[in-house]
Amino acid sequence: MSDTRNQSSSAAPAANTMWGGRFAVGPDEAMERINASIDFDRRFYREDIAASQAHAAMLVAQGIISAEDGDAIHRGLEQVLQEIESGTFAFSAALEDIHMNVEARLAELIGTPAGRLHTARSRNDQVATDFRLWLRGAVDALDAQVRDLQAALIGQAEAEAATIMPGYTHLQAAQPVTFGHHLLAYVEMLGRDRGRLTDCRKRINESPLGAAALAGTSFPIDRHATAAALRFERPLANSLDAVSARDFAIEFLAAGSILAVHLSRLAEELVLWCSQGFAFVTLSDAFTTGSSIMPQKKNPDAAELVRGKAGRVIGALTTLLVVIKGLPMAYGKDMQEDKEPVFEAADTLGLCLLAMTGMIRDLKADRAAMAAACSSGFLTATDLADWLVRAAGLPFREAHHVTGRLVKLAEDGGCDLADLSLEQMQAVDGRITDDVFSVLTVERATASRSSFGGTAPAQVRAAATQARERFL
Amino acid sequence: MSDTRNQSSSAAPAANTMWGGRFAVGPDEAMERINASIDFDRRFYREDIAASQAHAAMLVAQGIISAEDGDAIHRGLEQVLQEIESGTFAFSAALEDIHMNVEARLAELIGTPAGRLHTARSRNDQVATDFRLWLRGAVDALDAQVRDLQAALIGQAEAEAATIMPGYTHLQAAQPVTFGHHLLAYVEMLGRDRGRLTDCRKRINESPLGAAALAGTSFPIDRHATAAALRFERPLANSLDAVSARDFAIEFLAAGSILAVHLSRLAEELVLWCSQGFAFVTLSDAFTTGSSIMPQKKNPDAAELVRGKAGRVIGALTTLLVVIKGLPMAYGKDMQEDKEPVFEAADTLGLCLLAMTGMIRDLKADRAAMAAACSSGFLTATDLADWLVRAAGLPFREAHHVTGRLVKLAEDGGCDLADLSLEQMQAVDGRITDDVFSVLTVERATASRSSFGGTAPAQVRAAATQARERFL
Amino acid sequence: MSDTRNQSSSAAPAANTMWGGRFAVGPDEAMERINASIDFDRRFYREDIAASQAHAAMLVAQGIISAEDGDAIHRGLEQVLQEIESGTFAFSAALEDIHMNVEARLAELIGTPAGRLHTARSRNDQVATDFRLWLRGAVDALDAQVRDLQAALIGQAEAEAATIMPGYTHLQAAQPVTFGHHLLAYVEMLGRDRGRLTDCRKRINESPLGAAALAGTSFPIDRHATAAALRFERPLANSLDAVSARDFAIEFLAAGSILAVHLSRLAEELVLWCSQGFAFVTLSDAFTTGSSIMPQKKNPDAAELVRGKAGRVIGALTTLLVVIKGLPMAYGKDMQEDKEPVFEAADTLGLCLLAMTGMIRDLKADRAAMAAACSSGFLTATDLADWLVRAAGLPFREAHHVTGRLVKLAEDGGCDLADLSLEQMQAVDGRITDDVFSVLTVERATASRSSFGGTAPAQVRAAATQARERFL
Amino acid sequence: MSDTRNQSSSAAPAANTMWGGRFAVGPDEAMERINASIDFDRRFYREDIAASQAHAAMLVAQGIISAEDGDAIHRGLEQVLQEIESGTFAFSAALEDIHMNVEARLAELIGTPAGRLHTARSRNDQVATDFRLWLRGAVDALDAQVRDLQAALIGQAEAEAATIMPGYTHLQAAQPVTFGHHLLAYVEMLGRDRGRLTDCRKRINESPLGAAALAGTSFPIDRHATAAALRFERPLANSLDAVSARDFAIEFLAAGSILAVHLSRLAEELVLWCSQGFAFVTLSDAFTTGSSIMPQKKNPDAAELVRGKAGRVIGALTTLLVVIKGLPMAYGKDMQEDKEPVFEAADTLGLCLLAMTGMIRDLKADRAAMAAACSSGFLTATDLADWLVRAAGLPFREAHHVTGRLVKLAEDGGCDLADLSLEQMQAVDGRITDDVFSVLTVERATASRSSFGGTAPAQVRAAATQARERFL
Repeated sequence: MSDTRNQSSSAAPAANTMWGGRFAVGPDEAMERINASIDFDRRFYREDIAASQAHAAMLVAQGIISAEDGDAIHRGLEQVLQEIESGTFAFSAALEDIHMNVEARLAELIGTPAGRLHTARSRNDQVATDFRLWLRGAVDALDAQVRDLQAALIGQAEAEAATIMPGYTHLQAAQPVTFGHHLLAYVEMLGRDRGRLTDCRKRINESPLGAAALAGTSFPIDRHATAAALRFERPLANSLDAVSARDFAIEFLAAGSILAVHLSRLAEELVLWCSQGFAFVTLSDAFTTGSSIMPQKKNPDAAELVRGKAGRVIGALTTLLVVIKGLPMAYGKDMQEDKEPVFEAADTLGLCLLAMTGMIRDLKADRAAMAAACSSGFLTATDLADWLVRAAGLPFREAHHVTGRLVKLAEDGGCDLADLSLEQMQAVDGRITDDVFSVLTVERATASRSSFGGTAPAQVRAAATQARERFL
Repeated sequence: MSDTRNQSSSAAPAANTMWGGRFAVGPDEAMERINASIDFDRRFYREDIAASQAHAAMLVAQGIISAEDGDAIHRGLEQVLQEIESGTFAFSAALEDIHMNVEARLAELIGTPAGRLHTARSRNDQVATDFRLWLRGAVDALDAQVRDLQAALIGQAEAEAATIMPGYTHLQAAQPVTFGHHLLAYVEMLGRDRGRLTDCRKRINESPLGAAALAGTSFPIDRHATAAALRFERPLANSLDAVSARDFAIEFLAAGSILAVHLSRLAEELVLWCSQGFAFVTLSDAFTTGSSIMPQKKNPDAAELVRGKAGRVIGALTTLLVVIKGLPMAYGKDMQEDKEPVFEAADTLGLCLLAMTGMIRDLKADRAAMAAACSSGFLTATDLADWLVRAAGLPFREAHHVTGRLVKLAEDGGCDLADLSLEQMQAVDGRITDDVFSVLTVERATASRSSFGGTAPAQVRAAATQARERFL
Repeated sequence: MSDTRNQSSSAAPAANTMWGGRFAVGPDEAMERINASIDFDRRFYREDIAASQAHAAMLVAQGIISAEDGDAIHRGLEQVLQEIESGTFAFSAALEDIHMNVEARLAELIGTPAGRLHTARSRNDQVATDFRLWLRGAVDALDAQVRDLQAALIGQAEAEAATIMPGYTHLQAAQPVTFGHHLLAYVEMLGRDRGRLTDCRKRINESPLGAAALAGTSFPIDRHATAAALRFERPLANSLDAVSARDFAIEFLAAGSILAVHLSRLAEELVLWCSQGFAFVTLSDAFTTGSSIMPQKKNPDAAELVRGKAGRVIGALTTLLVVIKGLPMAYGKDMQEDKEPVFEAADTLGLCLLAMTGMIRDLKADRAAMAAACSSGFLTATDLADWLVRAAGLPFREAHHVTGRLVKLAEDGGCDLADLSLEQMQAVDGRITDDVFSVLTVERATASRSSFGGTAPAQVRAAATQARERFL
Repeated sequence: MSDTRNQSSSAAPAANTMWGGRFAVGPDEAMERINASIDFDRRFYREDIAASQAHAAMLVAQGIISAEDGDAIHRGLEQVLQEIESGTFAFSAALEDIHMNVEARLAELIGTPAGRLHTARSRNDQVATDFRLWLRGAVDALDAQVRDLQAALIGQAEAEAATIMPGYTHLQAAQPVTFGHHLLAYVEMLGRDRGRLTDCRKRINESPLGAAALAGTSFPIDRHATAAALRFERPLANSLDAVSARDFAIEFLAAGSILAVHLSRLAEELVLWCSQGFAFVTLSDAFTTGSSIMPQKKNPDAAELVRGKAGRVIGALTTLLVVIKGLPMAYGKDMQEDKEPVFEAADTLGLCLLAMTGMIRDLKADRAAMAAACSSGFLTATDLADWLVRAAGLPFREAHHVTGRLVKLAEDGGCDLADLSLEQMQAVDGRITDDVFSVLTVERATASRSSFGGTAPAQVRAAATQARERFL
């Protein structure tokens, strides 16, 4: 644990009283440090209190505790909530985790009834409940942030629907595309990312509460009631599974890793586009930095950080897969290692989305530079080949060969395809006519690719409109 | 590439003719080895041919090629299919990949019309189409295999619905559960795994065909028609995305990794349960091995391999995340590294599911050993605490303390809780009455946990019935 | 970044002044959050100041700055160090990182000469220097901790050199081993871990200082002098490599991951040995926990956490591999993502080693339970086979078969091999004589395995003595 | 397992005879498929036979088997070797692995003495021995290949020691460097990679032979003799460790992953340098490919594949870390999953090194394009700032600010720094004199960076000479 995180007041002189009379001495200091989770699971305070309130209300409704005790618990928990939110709550590492911190304070506030709250539950189902509630909220927040980024991309795509740039494969100029078309590709990727988050949310949103330690309980509880109160879709159907399942968290990390990879791809393109060799876009001062030694530098640090931070999210995914692999049922303490990777991934993704949305919103396309870049790379070679198929009736494979020879001719002559004379072309293949020049501009080439999903400006505008309807 | 896999006839003396006239010399031998994908992408032959047939039919329907050419292509491809399936097809590494191998043979068979097949497409959209078709089939096959394993588990769960064993947390005996209940937890995990496969399938099942190299095409193609012919849900909406998206494959590997982790957990339990310290189950001879040095051994090799192979699937996921991270659009050759991890994961999962289903089906529970194990570990301590809450009105936290003292008393006396005398108990807490003994047997303890999802045999039987309806 | 970590005072209204006049507006708030590293790189304060002092002293020695300026810088940095160590230093996120925080404070303290400190260096070489110095110290600290754990293991091994337990393969009882022998296996693994740390240290301990931004500098600096002052082995030989190499950090994470895996294996054994099915050891109260619901529980939480935390270290390794993969030279901001995984891994390993050393030191072996476990599993079957080879002259493969039949006979009879009568044995193979019983006790079996590295108590004692010499 | 790899003749009707009489029925077909390793461990045939010959010779020398039997074994194994190398050996999946395949054939060839070969060993120490021998050879082969790549890089570096190109940080032009200097950075990285391989080799090169199943043996074997015969440094000191250690293989995968990451960085640069935006180098036809649709393309496929294949090696590392994490001692079948990742990594690295060496050797630097790229990006801004420090006595921080203003002036004027007039400069800072222009050319800037490790051509030539001595 980082030296900057450990701020809890810590003192555990005697045996932990909540474990009962079996322990003669208290934990070693190393044990307390490795065991305590309060430094990170305090993030669950809101969920922990809400789940306890739902649990207590159900215990009252089922006649397991009295209404008076239920009221005292409810009001006491409200006060604990206020203390935490106002910063006056004193967290204790000796009390291990958020559950015991809250319950211990509740006992100070309301006395005996606090001891009835833990009836018919265990920390095993309690922590699983808190975690699912928290993650459900995190998923919803990320989904909204991805939507914001889609909005920024669609906005730029509409503005640049007719801006022509080289499209690349293998980072080699291949065919002209519009910058708007390029940006909309990311809108699609992000749309699938949102689909994955939504699908994952279904599997998060099931209630473990009432599974108790592992086997259920002999108290006549109503798990459907607590599930409904906490807006879970349903209670989980098997108590052992309820306390030991962590696939929902791994799935979140997997969906997050794919999202992070998508962001890294866009970030890579921003870094390339800002480089002197491309110079296609200018990022705003607000998302770039200078150098402590080279005064001329304007560095795309935010883009690089977004690209790099994909590693952090993938690392978090790896972590949890390793932790859970091969664990027997039911709950094992290894599972406590689930939270920090999930927090780190959620925080990282939130920050990356914020920065990327800002970068895209502020970005200025340099249309002149993009146009200039279209003059090299023989971007209309495919159009020439297609013309040979369409107008001169060559099989594609043969047209491809003829075009290859014409490209070589232009390359040797240091000119573009459109600069070859008709005579030069006909010397290569006599079936070529003057009409061929009609397809050799990048504007014509771009406009002609009007098949569904293609790069023609009209297609791009239609796609942007549809994307607004589908995603925003 | 392994020395055992490379069986293609390989000779590339001259420049690759399909690249046109720009290349003066052919590839280096190292280049051919690193570049050729035919050793693994030949698995796509069926999908490649089906996609080509759909593409050719569309070209005919749109008037881009003639019906005669279309017929020739269709029949020629049928013959190629037969040659491959009968093992007479000669694959060539010089032709790089399955696409060029098929097309080159088609040209031998039908001549010029073969050259028209590649009109309005590229290998970039072609390979993405093949891969998605193949993976869709692999997902369906795995889903069926997971269902088979669920069926085996449910069958055992029904037979062992009332078989009592220690339930563990931290691998410490905690509370009694039924073996059937324990097995049904895996049915739930596998059910979510199937949900993930189904969700992933939606995102696989979109058509890239017609995106061509990256920008779409100027030919008047009908992408909806080819999508429908290949039973895709819809064409992908952006051509750049269509050729460079690999998130569908990463998502498959993520879903597969979670499935593999679930299998590893069950495998770990089998290894434990076979060990002399537990001896809860006997695996069949068909899924165990002996030793070359210790004649008495009966080793759960298949379970260990299933446990270990989770590493392979997780490694495949890591691979593809690393490959795609930071790649600019559109297609880059790095993406060729997508197939082998996916094949390895799909094959590994298929084999693990087959072995696990066999192990579970054949497994014999040793009910006597399970019962014997229930005699240590004070498995009914929670029931005692709960009794104190219910019958004697103690707050749970106080009941927990009283029980802790009673456990210590029993431990010191070398007996179980039920073996303590009433007097001994009352010396700890005077509110205890003779009624307490009614909850101190594992049978009573198990039967009492009848809350939804709990371990009571009646609950387990109901859960098994419901699982049949939900999953089989 | 976690909401609990971000405590820096943060305000960046205007353009960052250290980047010069090119920036019109300051960073976006998201930019500042994603860009600032002060929340984690403040851990480098000691190294940063030491490196600056060495740099300034060299600048003076080379006549690049005056002795007066050098003195002012040295004393000013001493004061900054005191302020940080006494907790009075005000860190600022607007100043991004530890380097600028220190330098800004230095400028407040000593004025103009502070501006001369950054002559002939850049933050690129500065951060690489700090990181290497810090990591060198972390490696030394971990090496000492691993040695402590080896000492604890050797101590227990000496005490339990003759304690016989079942040795397992496939978690099946295989042959008797001594508990001391088993523990010494970990001493060997940890010895190799220390070897890896030492080897890694060589590659950490080279100086990037003076590489400046990426290309070296035109000032007549003396890189060998600063390297020597900071106890580096040598200056790195290429300036581009010096600022962009991160393999030293990945190598540390790899060595740490293997160490973590070794700890996870030992942790797994502790969890097993504490389980009721084995009950071979008792962990101390100081390293176990109780349950909030089950008063009888004594859970090996620390062992489980050590086992689980291997996932964290492996995740950190994955992170940095992903971050650095495919990065062009020289420095890119992605590289800032190197520190948090390294800090997390170093902290995690330190804590795990502390807990594991405590657990091993406190651990009590239950010799009776180990002995009892030797009575099942036919642990002397190999000895019987070996006797048949030695005394009766059978080829090993035939001896193995004969033994297999005798094991089956004993198993069917519900007895151990030693309980078979000579007649029963001779009925299987007539060459067996009464002498065979001399090898059928676990004591004899253990004592006989006196080949180098074998489990015979005498061997174990010798091995422990040698381990003391080699490692402590 | 891939459908293309499984070529072994496979038939296992009855119980496996080498396990003795305890197994009533043979393995399930799924069991045989998941269990058999012969499809991959046949790669060990040479090592397996060599280790058996060393073992047999030692058994003779120790008087454990007769000289006649030893001779028969030796000659029989020679014949088996010839049969395998000539391709006439019939591998059988029913015999599981290379060890049993060899031994079974030996028994056919020489009869009874074959049964004595397995005296005092087990497949557990046998496979560990084979694996270490094989990996030692693989490490040596890779080391030679890395040296070849260093040689190619040094050759190019010498030829391009004075070729000036923009040096980049954040992919922004920063300061001029020489192309030779840039290439030598990789020579340093690869030098450390070789150091890691060498260090790893020490830990590979220890002998497990004679550890038998896990506990050593009661036969009077001489482990030092077999270790020496197989050129191991020493026998491993603990038999349990000897059969269950796999850290040597993980360490190889870690060293290989770092090497792969280094190759991926160089590959990324090649891809960038080939792109139209840079156009710094031309790759040979032998290591590029064309397009099936765009005749003008010349794609750096080999570089992209090298970049992508880093994912495969990292995936292999992840695999083995996951497999071994949490495994109790001693041998478990999970460990069989160690080989395929190691084979895949070794094969992948071998192929990547071959391709990269070819690419570097053939590469043509376009000096004119590099020079042209130096005209944008204000590459001499740092030199201007350094001049202000040196010649005009400004503190660096102030010099940095002045330079920033001059850069802005040049940028606004659309010119380079050297194109500003002295008057324009003096208007910004009066201390500037005509001498400043002497540092504003990239040639001067490059030549001035002559500090150790700097980019000055003279330094680069010296560094190349030293690199030859250190590495070739």
